[in-house]
Amino acid sequence: MSRDNYNPAIHHLGRRLRLAVIGGGPGSFIGGMHRQAARLTDSYDLVAAAVSANPERALEGGRNLGLAEERIFSDGLKMIDAESRREDGAEVIAIMTPNDSHLLFSKAALKAGMDVICDKPMTNTLKEAEELAALVEETGLIFRLTHNYTGYPMTRQAKAMVETGELGEIRLIQVEYVQGGKADESQPDPKGAEAPWRFDRVKGGPSLVMGDIGTHAHNLIRFVTGLEVAEVAAEAGAIVPGREIHDYTGALLRMEGGARGSYWVTQAAAGVENSLSFRISGTKGSLEWNQEIPQRLTFKPLGQPAQTRTPNGPGTLPLSAWSSHIVAGHPEGFPDGFANIYRDAAEAVAARRAGSSPRPESLSCPDHRDGLSGIRFVTAVLESSEKGSAWTKVK
Amino acid sequence: MSRDNYNPAIHHLGRRLRLAVIGGGPGSFIGGMHRQAARLTDSYDLVAAAVSANPERALEGGRNLGLAEERIFSDGLKMIDAESRREDGAEVIAIMTPNDSHLLFSKAALKAGMDVICDKPMTNTLKEAEELAALVEETGLIFRLTHNYTGYPMTRQAKAMVETGELGEIRLIQVEYVQGGKADESQPDPKGAEAPWRFDRVKGGPSLVMGDIGTHAHNLIRFVTGLEVAEVAAEAGAIVPGREIHDYTGALLRMEGGARGSYWVTQAAAGVENSLSFRISGTKGSLEWNQEIPQRLTFKPLGQPAQTRTPNGPGTLPLSAWSSHIVAGHPEGFPDGFANIYRDAAEAVAARRAGSSPRPESLSCPDHRDGLSGIRFVTAVLESSEKGSAWTKVK
Amino acid sequence: MSRDNYNPAIHHLGRRLRLAVIGGGPGSFIGGMHRQAARLTDSYDLVAAAVSANPERALEGGRNLGLAEERIFSDGLKMIDAESRREDGAEVIAIMTPNDSHLLFSKAALKAGMDVICDKPMTNTLKEAEELAALVEETGLIFRLTHNYTGYPMTRQAKAMVETGELGEIRLIQVEYVQGGKADESQPDPKGAEAPWRFDRVKGGPSLVMGDIGTHAHNLIRFVTGLEVAEVAAEAGAIVPGREIHDYTGALLRMEGGARGSYWVTQAAAGVENSLSFRISGTKGSLEWNQEIPQRLTFKPLGQPAQTRTPNGPGTLPLSAWSSHIVAGHPEGFPDGFANIYRDAAEAVAARRAGSSPRPESLSCPDHRDGLSGIRFVTAVLESSEKGSAWTKVK
Amino acid sequence: MSRDNYNPAIHHLGRRLRLAVIGGGPGSFIGGMHRQAARLTDSYDLVAAAVSANPERALEGGRNLGLAEERIFSDGLKMIDAESRREDGAEVIAIMTPNDSHLLFSKAALKAGMDVICDKPMTNTLKEAEELAALVEETGLIFRLTHNYTGYPMTRQAKAMVETGELGEIRLIQVEYVQGGKADESQPDPKGAEAPWRFDRVKGGPSLVMGDIGTHAHNLIRFVTGLEVAEVAAEAGAIVPGREIHDYTGALLRMEGGARGSYWVTQAAAGVENSLSFRISGTKGSLEWNQEIPQRLTFKPLGQPAQTRTPNGPGTLPLSAWSSHIVAGHPEGFPDGFANIYRDAAEAVAARRAGSSPRPESLSCPDHRDGLSGIRFVTAVLESSEKGSAWTKVK
Repeated sequence: MSRDNYNPAIHHLGRRLRLAVIGGGPGSFIGGMHRQAARLTDSYDLVAAAVSANPERALEGGRNLGLAEERIFSDGLKMIDAESRREDGAEVIAIMTPNDSHLLFSKAALKAGMDVICDKPMTNTLKEAEELAALVEETGLIFRLTHNYTGYPMTRQAKAMVETGELGEIRLIQVEYVQGGKADESQPDPKGAEAPWRFDRVKGGPSLVMGDIGTHAHNLIRFVTGLEVAEVAAEAGAIVPGREIHDYTGALLRMEGGARGSYWVTQAAAGVENSLSFRISGTKGSLEWNQEIPQRLTFKPLGQPAQTRTPNGPGTLPLSAWSSHIVAGHPEGFPDGFANIYRDAAEAVAARRAGSSPRPESLSCPDHRDGLSGIRFVTAVLESSEKGSAWTKVK
Repeated sequence: MSRDNYNPAIHHLGRRLRLAVIGGGPGSFIGGMHRQAARLTDSYDLVAAAVSANPERALEGGRNLGLAEERIFSDGLKMIDAESRREDGAEVIAIMTPNDSHLLFSKAALKAGMDVICDKPMTNTLKEAEELAALVEETGLIFRLTHNYTGYPMTRQAKAMVETGELGEIRLIQVEYVQGGKADESQPDPKGAEAPWRFDRVKGGPSLVMGDIGTHAHNLIRFVTGLEVAEVAAEAGAIVPGREIHDYTGALLRMEGGARGSYWVTQAAAGVENSLSFRISGTKGSLEWNQEIPQRLTFKPLGQPAQTRTPNGPGTLPLSAWSSHIVAGHPEGFPDGFANIYRDAAEAVAARRAGSSPRPESLSCPDHRDGLSGIRFVTAVLESSEKGSAWTKVK
Repeated sequence: MSRDNYNPAIHHLGRRLRLAVIGGGPGSFIGGMHRQAARLTDSYDLVAAAVSANPERALEGGRNLGLAEERIFSDGLKMIDAESRREDGAEVIAIMTPNDSHLLFSKAALKAGMDVICDKPMTNTLKEAEELAALVEETGLIFRLTHNYTGYPMTRQAKAMVETGELGEIRLIQVEYVQGGKADESQPDPKGAEAPWRFDRVKGGPSLVMGDIGTHAHNLIRFVTGLEVAEVAAEAGAIVPGREIHDYTGALLRMEGGARGSYWVTQAAAGVENSLSFRISGTKGSLEWNQEIPQRLTFKPLGQPAQTRTPNGPGTLPLSAWSSHIVAGHPEGFPDGFANIYRDAAEAVAARRAGSSPRPESLSCPDHRDGLSGIRFVTAVLESSEKGSAWTKVK
Repeated sequence: MSRDNYNPAIHHLGRRLRLAVIGGGPGSFIGGMHRQAARLTDSYDLVAAAVSANPERALEGGRNLGLAEERIFSDGLKMIDAESRREDGAEVIAIMTPNDSHLLFSKAALKAGMDVICDKPMTNTLKEAEELAALVEETGLIFRLTHNYTGYPMTRQAKAMVETGELGEIRLIQVEYVQGGKADESQPDPKGAEAPWRFDRVKGGPSLVMGDIGTHAHNLIRFVTGLEVAEVAAEAGAIVPGREIHDYTGALLRMEGGARGSYWVTQAAAGVENSLSFRISGTKGSLEWNQEIPQRLTFKPLGQPAQTRTPNGPGTLPLSAWSSHIVAGHPEGFPDGFANIYRDAAEAVAARRAGSSPRPESLSCPDHRDGLSGIRFVTAVLESSEKGSAWTKVK
């Protein structure tokens, strides 16, 4: 079901959804990714933006997006307010600000009746996460979280294979998310007022590595296996001497139902680019995937030759087919996976606004429940780490 | 230089380019790819379309694209005419119709002062190609050809490494383009009026495999090495019994300057998805690349360990950096490579229309000269094949 | 320094070493591997054998090896005794019996003045290991342990790169040893008297997975990094319901000097063959290796393109060159790595017996100290596992 | 059927075969490979050697092999004569001399009633090949040719899959053998009397690249597909300026039965190690293999997910099982493949001498017919190349 043959907004509403963004100013990596994801789906018109709290940067950024000045803001709350008063105002708010403001902007948007697409992690603290999740439930509005690695055709194929029973009962899980961006010890970490918000424990959260990538790794195995982590024995810390933020976490996992797992995330592995990978073993076989070559999923069925599965290749299940937009052999990439999150969100939002039913494939998209689960996991990891890696329940 | 940080149209003109498309109706693979490429760049507004010669399909397709009915057409020539009369009419025409109409529509567009983005192959016959190339030169307008595999960051890195001398003098070239789409012999080829245009020698050209993929393989090695094929000894034919169109071509190559090469293209290799790959060896090392994992380029320097180059990874040269939009380790895919062609085209068109200079990185984009070279190559291959694979000059 | 150009026994002694084996009877996997390793080196003549405690099988096995009946035994101790009385008696005893008899036979051999090559793990218990290590030190004889994965050219290249400082200071270690041989839950584990010795905690040791493969994983990272594990937080257990022996162990590692690590071994990952792999990150780069493709070592230097190192390829260091016997591109395999252990042993034994100095490259071969370290690690893992994965010192 | 569990010589004769070697003196790559292959099988005792025509080197080499001086020779013919007179004389002669002497020594051995293992190519000229093939037929003795790449478990698995019909009818063949050993243009080729024999057209044959590696590539596709090349359009030459020997050959192939193919061999591809690879496509699927990772065979069945086959992994056919000596996941290498040729030879020789039947799996081993076919192919390639790459029958 390629993007081109099915446009959720046009399908349900006969028009595109009106989107406003908060955050993602000039130079932001993730801001461009969000906006391009929206464009790829062809289901959104970007109508307003507050890409920066700095008025000049907000204006520059908004103009580069081709927006009229009246719809360019430097205060996200004011934008939500202004847009909510327009007949042609934004219906969907996409939030890509520092983590500590996710709750603030989400709350305002939801209270204004807008649907929300929010960058991960959902919040910094468990209290915030619980408040936001409750509000989403209460309003009945759509909230989607850009755990974008769940948008790849092959992670979705993996999830679908588990759901259809091709793996049998899940027994063992290995997940790693290894990067090298914080490995160069000749470059001291930025500190003080000029440091990026990620390095500030208030804005960026209690554990940099967990907020940045640890929640992705956690969410990905939940997504594929459908299992929650029940207990964790973990150590989080800084491997680089003198570093004040966390740059690695190792953990042993006990999953609900009894599966066991190994979890390893770090941003201090010199020379490694972006190795998010898993091996998931069930009674009938194992699945292996690595984000650096996301167009391949290895399936090793018990007693049969290993298989290499590809997007839209033989054996593609509906959830993966929904998420693959080209014929087999023409690899899509990170932007397409990210766009699948936006497309799922468009399906949910457009169907809700049209009073119609969203396609079931769109419902695997991460939402507030996944966000809450992620913060619970981070909380348990940090608690275990402080208690000498004692087994700690995730709750 | 990510798409997000640099929008050619906004940069040069302060606005997006107005784009109209001909061809690419409902169900077309390539139509969606073109339009999504345009969206990814954020440099075009799609303002008009003639996606099908069938009025009903044209209307359905146009509506799905969110176009006003007055700008939906079933006749590309009429659309060009109508748009050329509007003040806000299309400036760029993208053509993705059967090959035999590329000249017709390109000519009309160029004569109307519009810039052109055309699908490959440029034309079916050498006569057509020569006419079109001459017209492009004469008008001074922009003509770009979607040999999209030249849009990948790593094919561009390869070209840049050759240009900067990292390979030394080119000695040996291997290129293959192997697919399996026409391998299933239990499925007879479509024939007669209902057959897709590709199977019609008038519309699809004299050699299906050469038009579909053979020109891609030829163009890719020219792109990377900067060398033209001087002579060819070739055999083109049908390996599947009873087939009337060509499904394979093998050739030996003599390049200008003396390098030698091997060329192999087929659509009848059962089970193979889309293996376009090359090995290019110079006096200082070899480069290896395969489209199925386009985010990797292997460089094997003489006497040193082999290297794996990645988009935006260490050693990235300007042409590749211009074409990579994410930090290393986050693979972009086929759509992003395709979009790089549209972005190069936007840079050229917007700069021309603004009277400014296009960025030099954008000038490697395939144009009418590449299209003409491709048709010359096809012509020589078929001539050699008919003459018992005798060495035949490409001219 | 290929096997063919340098024969340790011929070099130091002008003749081959006389070898006797205990264990490895008909049907044994490891027995054939040991004997073939000896043959590959061309440094041993097999002169006596007690391949089985069962007299008939011992006889059959010995005859298949082409031995004279007087030198075929079913009792290893008797063989050691008999051989020690012959002028042309065995000089080296290779032991490949169940783990609980390694001490017994090693002791007898050492006391008879014979050098020993012993299969891993060195012993089942720490007490045994300490006794054996002390005896080796006391006698001054050669004792080598077939942790054969340290014999591959590329694990040796990795070690050598760490030693020469190419990785800088070691920061992070990941190691996994994942197999699927015990994943098929439709096949209940053998129990009772007919079960293979591995399933008997007395003969096979307290933790099957640790003895079989966990000690390999532990030894390999020590070998490459030169660092001991200082503390471990671990869980060992059975993931397959109803299983009585251990089939997985997960652990977090604290290395001496402060590096951190993740350790994961299991024999219950359905469909996985023999995935022993590591990633070792230092301040200057990371090394990645997987036993299933042992002829490749990936080096990812900080800020430079990733490299693929190959046996005898560019950049080969002396320890690896010593262990690679063919020109680059002709991959050697598991038997060749195993044979490198036998070759190192031959070098040590022949030099000792000749009163000459062994080549320094031969001294990286695992010995009693490595064996003792392995049993200490197993002991700490099991202790931690029993104490709720509490951090436990390895001592 | 591991080497350890089945020793052809012991099985058929109750003893090892007596082997003598000609050629492979100190420093020879291939000499060590042959002797180690013999040792790996445990089916031969090396009893005599003429490793060099230079008496001093012959003596040094023979002593290093632990031979008695009376069985060390510098003249192969004299060795054959002397051994043929001994009761315990050599039964099998292995020949690894310059190509132009293969006929001479083979003839002498066969005439003395000895079986022969000969390095490839069988001879330099077609006349020699025909004479030798006829003599083998006439004597009924065993003659095996070390086209060792046919000894890998996965090339044998490929052959067996074709034979059992898993590929259907063969349609398309691609084979390349690409090396970089002659790419460094700063190192001029050795010339004159001091040049290695390979560079001498009389000793090394009319085309260096064809004799060295071209015959391997040709033989491998015949082996796997069971098809002969019927016609060839080829160009052989020197790509390096000023070079007098051939360093590349490109060819188009027409196979008997109609399959088409592409053939590319060169030793001048800078930085490439030893890339012998094929893709063979039949009506039911394709097989892909590359010698640099010989433990993997990719099978892409039509309409089903691609599979990765491994030695002794699921789906292993008898010919491959016969040739794999370890449990899956423990990769064997080049020496093991080479040894499989020696083992097949031992099976044939021992069965013949015992008057028993050889195992059918051993009969796929290359022999004089394969050698003759190879020389016919070289002859046709060179003829085609001289005639402007005209299609030339292989006969």
